[in-house]
Amino acid sequence: MQILNDTDGMTLALEWAARGMFITAPNPRIGCVIVQGGAVIGAGHTQPAGQAHAEIEALRDAAARGNDVRGATAYVTLEPCNHHGRTPPCSDALVRAGLGRVVAAMEDPNPLVAGQGLARLKAAGIAVASGVLAEQAYEMNIGFFSRMRRGLPWVRLKAAASLDGMTALHSGESQWITGPEARADGHAWRARACAILTGIGTVKADDPQLTVRGIDTPRQPRRVIVDSNLDIALDARVLAGAASWIVAASANPAKEAALRAAGHEVIMLPNDAGKVDLPALMRELGRREINEVHVEAGAKLNGSLIREGCVDELLVYLAPSLIGDAQGMFAIGPLQSLELRQRLKFHEVKQVGEDLRILARIPHI
Amino acid sequence: MQILNDTDGMTLALEWAARGMFITAPNPRIGCVIVQGGAVIGAGHTQPAGQAHAEIEALRDAAARGNDVRGATAYVTLEPCNHHGRTPPCSDALVRAGLGRVVAAMEDPNPLVAGQGLARLKAAGIAVASGVLAEQAYEMNIGFFSRMRRGLPWVRLKAAASLDGMTALHSGESQWITGPEARADGHAWRARACAILTGIGTVKADDPQLTVRGIDTPRQPRRVIVDSNLDIALDARVLAGAASWIVAASANPAKEAALRAAGHEVIMLPNDAGKVDLPALMRELGRREINEVHVEAGAKLNGSLIREGCVDELLVYLAPSLIGDAQGMFAIGPLQSLELRQRLKFHEVKQVGEDLRILARIPHI
Repeated sequence: MQILNDTDGMTLALEWAARGMFITAPNPRIGCVIVQGGAVIGAGHTQPAGQAHAEIEALRDAAARGNDVRGATAYVTLEPCNHHGRTPPCSDALVRAGLGRVVAAMEDPNPLVAGQGLARLKAAGIAVASGVLAEQAYEMNIGFFSRMRRGLPWVRLKAAASLDGMTALHSGESQWITGPEARADGHAWRARACAILTGIGTVKADDPQLTVRGIDTPRQPRRVIVDSNLDIALDARVLAGAASWIVAASANPAKEAALRAAGHEVIMLPNDAGKVDLPALMRELGRREINEVHVEAGAKLNGSLIREGCVDELLVYLAPSLIGDAQGMFAIGPLQSLELRQRLKFHEVKQVGEDLRILARIPHI
Repeated sequence: MQILNDTDGMTLALEWAARGMFITAPNPRIGCVIVQGGAVIGAGHTQPAGQAHAEIEALRDAAARGNDVRGATAYVTLEPCNHHGRTPPCSDALVRAGLGRVVAAMEDPNPLVAGQGLARLKAAGIAVASGVLAEQAYEMNIGFFSRMRRGLPWVRLKAAASLDGMTALHSGESQWITGPEARADGHAWRARACAILTGIGTVKADDPQLTVRGIDTPRQPRRVIVDSNLDIALDARVLAGAASWIVAASANPAKEAALRAAGHEVIMLPNDAGKVDLPALMRELGRREINEVHVEAGAKLNGSLIREGCVDELLVYLAPSLIGDAQGMFAIGPLQSLELRQRLKFHEVKQVGEDLRILARIPHI
C-alpha cells in the first residue's frame, strides 16, 4: 500500500488501532504506522495494559523487518505520551529512533498533559502535526476520552423496538423483534464496552447471560447489575462464569456474603430514595477505569438512567414492523409539557440487515 | 450536456419527467429527451391531461430549435403509448419523425397494452430497448402504476414523532416535534399527491388547512375527510377555498345539503359497523383517478387504515427527542401475540434537517 498523503497514513493507523479494539482497556486503542518514501515500513497497535504502546510496537515491527526509520514519518492516532506510566514515554522512543516527522490524529484529551508529547518531539527537532482524522480517532476511544475529561464512562444505551417504538406486549410477551444481523451487531457493541449494565428486572424476566457471543474477543466485559434490594438469584445466568458487580441500595448481609463467596462484588450506593444512586454509580465505574458502559436493560432502568442524566448515547435498532399499544423502550413521562421532552442529536443512521440502527446522542448542557 | 450512454440519456429524461411532477395527474409524469451524436436536440415532459405527451413535446422542441431528429435516439421514461386516448398515439409520431432508436425506462404498466408501443416502433424499423433506470421511473409514477395495475391509489401515510414514537401528550398537548426542514419536506409530498386524506378527529382537534404551502405548484390536491357522522363544521378550514370530498357512513340530509350548497361532495360509503368502509373508499378514489393519496390523520384513523390493509407506505419523520408515556402514531393493538405485528420493509432513510425521514412499505401478500 502506497501512502500518498497524511490522510492515507492516518487512515491506515486507524485500521491498526481497530485491531486493538478488544484488548487495550483501560488504555485507549491506538494505532501507529511508520512511512518512508510512501512505503509502510512499520506498524503496530497498543497492547494490553502494561505492555507496549502503538509507537513502540511500530518501531519494533520496523526493526524486526530490518527497516531504517531515521527521517521517516510516524502516523499515530493519539498524541504520543510524554510521561512514565505503566510504560516509559513514547515521545522519548520516537526521538531516540530518529523519526523525521510525527503526525497525530489528535492531542491528548487530558488537559494537564495535552500538547506535551508533541512539544517534546518538536523540541528534539522532529516536525509535528496534529488534527488529521481527529473525529474518527475520537470516536474510537470515546469512552477513554470521557473518563479522562469527566471522570465518567461513556454510557451507551442499547434498545431494540418496532418502528413505533415498542419492545414487548403488555402481557410481557417479548421475542426477537430485530433480525440476526442487528443482534450480531449488538454483540460487537457489547464487545467494545468495558462493562455491560442491566437491572434486576431484566435479570428476573429474561435471565440473560449478557456475554459477548459470535465475536472473536479475548475479553468479556464486566457485568454490572443494578439490584437495589439484592433480589438476584445465585443461579442467575448473569452471575455465571466470571465475577460480576452487583450494585445495591439496602443491606442484606446473608445475600451479600453468598454473592461474595461466589466471587462477586457487592457495591452499596444508596440514594435518598432508597434506590441505587445512578449518577454515583457512573462516577464509581469511572473510578474503576470503565471506559464504555453498554446498557441493556428494561424500560424502567432505561428511563431512570436517562432522567438522571447518566446516558450519553442511544443505540436504537428499529425493526420494520408496527406493534401498537404495547411496552415502550424508555419509561419516561408522562411529561407535564412537551417542552420537557428529552432532546437528542442523531449521530449516525445505518441499515443493518432489514433493521435500522440509529445512534443518537444526548447533549449535556 | 454530453450524453455518453443510455444511463445518461435516461437520467436526463427523468429530470425532465420531474418537471411535470405537479401538473400531469391523472396522467403519469413522463420525460423525453432526443439525442443525436451525444447532443440533446430536443426535450419535453407530459403536459396537463388532454395536452401533449412528453414525446410530442420533445419532437416539437427539436423542431422549434431547427434540429433534425431523423436517426436520433429518444429516451422516454415510459413506453410510448400506442392507442388513441385524449391524444393520438405517441408511437405513430415517433415513427413519422424518423427516429432511429427509442429507449424506454419501462414498459406500460397496463398488462393489456404492455409492449405494444415498443412493438409498433420495432415493426416500423426503429431499434428499441427498455429497462433503463426502470426503478426510478417506477417510483416517480408509483401512484399511476398502482391505479393501472390494481385500480387503487398508492396510499402514503405521513406521521411525525419523537424517536420513541410519540406524537402528543395524553393531555392532548401537541406541537411541532419535527423541525422546519421536515415540515417543508412534508409539503413536497403533499404536493405530489392527488388527494390528501384526513379524519374528522384531526379536523376537530387541529382545524388544519391541509393545503400545499411553500411549494411552487399550480394545483392543490383534493382534500378528502373521513367523517362517518358528518360532524364537520361548515367553517372548518379544510373546507375553505376549494371543493372537498366528505366521506360519511350515516345520512344527515340537512348537513349534506349544506355541504353540497357550499360546493363540496358527500360520498356515502358505510360498512356493516356503521363506519366508513375504508377499502371501498380506496376503490372509489381509484375510480376517480386519484393516483397518490397522502394521509395526514390521527392515530385512530391511521390505525384503522393500516389494520384494514389500505396503506402502502409509511412516511415517518422521527425527531431527535424522547417523550415517553404519551400518544403514539398508529392506534393498533393491543395484539394477542407479537406474531400478529404489522410487517414493513424499510425503503429509504434520509436525514432531513435534524430529523430522520423513513419510508417504509407494507408488503401486500
